[in-house]
Amino acid sequence: MVRMSADGTPRRRRLSPEQRRAQIIAEATRLVAERGFNGISLQAVADACGMSVPGLLHYTGTKDGLLVAVLTHRDQVDLEVAGLTAPPDLIASPRTVLDALMEHNAGQREIVRLYTVLNAESLNPDHPAHEYFTRRYMESFERLRNLLGPHYADAEALSHDLIAAMDGAQLQWLRFPEQVDLVEAWNRAADAIFAAAAPAKR
Amino acid sequence: MVRMSADGTPRRRRLSPEQRRAQIIAEATRLVAERGFNGISLQAVADACGMSVPGLLHYTGTKDGLLVAVLTHRDQVDLEVAGLTAPPDLIASPRTVLDALMEHNAGQREIVRLYTVLNAESLNPDHPAHEYFTRRYMESFERLRNLLGPHYADAEALSHDLIAAMDGAQLQWLRFPEQVDLVEAWNRAADAIFAAAAPAKR
Repeated sequence: MVRMSADGTPRRRRLSPEQRRAQIIAEATRLVAERGFNGISLQAVADACGMSVPGLLHYTGTKDGLLVAVLTHRDQVDLEVAGLTAPPDLIASPRTVLDALMEHNAGQREIVRLYTVLNAESLNPDHPAHEYFTRRYMESFERLRNLLGPHYADAEALSHDLIAAMDGAQLQWLRFPEQVDLVEAWNRAADAIFAAAAPAKR
Repeated sequence: MVRMSADGTPRRRRLSPEQRRAQIIAEATRLVAERGFNGISLQAVADACGMSVPGLLHYTGTKDGLLVAVLTHRDQVDLEVAGLTAPPDLIASPRTVLDALMEHNAGQREIVRLYTVLNAESLNPDHPAHEYFTRRYMESFERLRNLLGPHYADAEALSHDLIAAMDGAQLQWLRFPEQVDLVEAWNRAADAIFAAAAPAKR
């Protein structure tokens, strides 16, 4: 039952700062997915949260800050999707982890587009997302290297090659959604890369 | 010997429109390579050509038009570097063609950066370079498919996978120039992809 305030309008539940931040990220993610990130405005996100734009900016800083918050949240979801938040001895094979991520990505086109465009733009060291992306790549290389290390000889190079295959396939899928099937393209590339990888010495 | 005009200043040779356009593209390409494309202005390109900005715009339209002209020129150079302007019976193996392109790219970082950033930004259909990139990919797929067709069974998928590997490797090399060797990364990916490719049925 919706509780009413004295003037008969629905009373808005007070959100804690953490809840407010989660709400902002959820609404911004939803709007990016629906309209593309060029199509969203701070005003639209603020409206969706029942806030003013200055109120929104208090939580996220600039629009760039909001986008980085959306991406950081996506990274956390990705870790869960990939099963990487499980205890180390329960983590599946590297291939299973990567397959799960790419299948997940195939269902969230606008988030992948946001990632792809900001990634390229932020090659410029002055870009507000430059540090975020550089750190994200380094963490991804390291995480993947640790997963691959017990199985393959050159886990470092292999981690780079697999991530390059993901990025390259996503770029084509984003431009040619009718012709390119992301999961198929990924599977072909991953089959080839894993088949060529030398096993770890024992 | 520089010919002088009546007032003693060097007389500027009259350039034909084609020569002028070639000069603009050459200077813009040089400036992009030296300063990055965020660092170049229409004014700087106009200065380098001894023209006014309105004079420059007469030839290239907007700054976006100038960037597309730079990229189109690069594509022509690439065709020559790859030996693809030779008569069909003189064209080398697909792998040799692609290796030549990637070695060439390893020496023109700022052009590759320009390509990478505009490529991602132009996923948006409203971007001024959208048509250019979509056409460029389709032409690249077709050209590569024709090269691969006599040798491999699924030339279509193979053309996609090889171009994805190029794009993905370039993205990492642009972000981590100290850690990532573009030619090495390409060779690893190409070795794996070609090794996994089924030969054409005869």
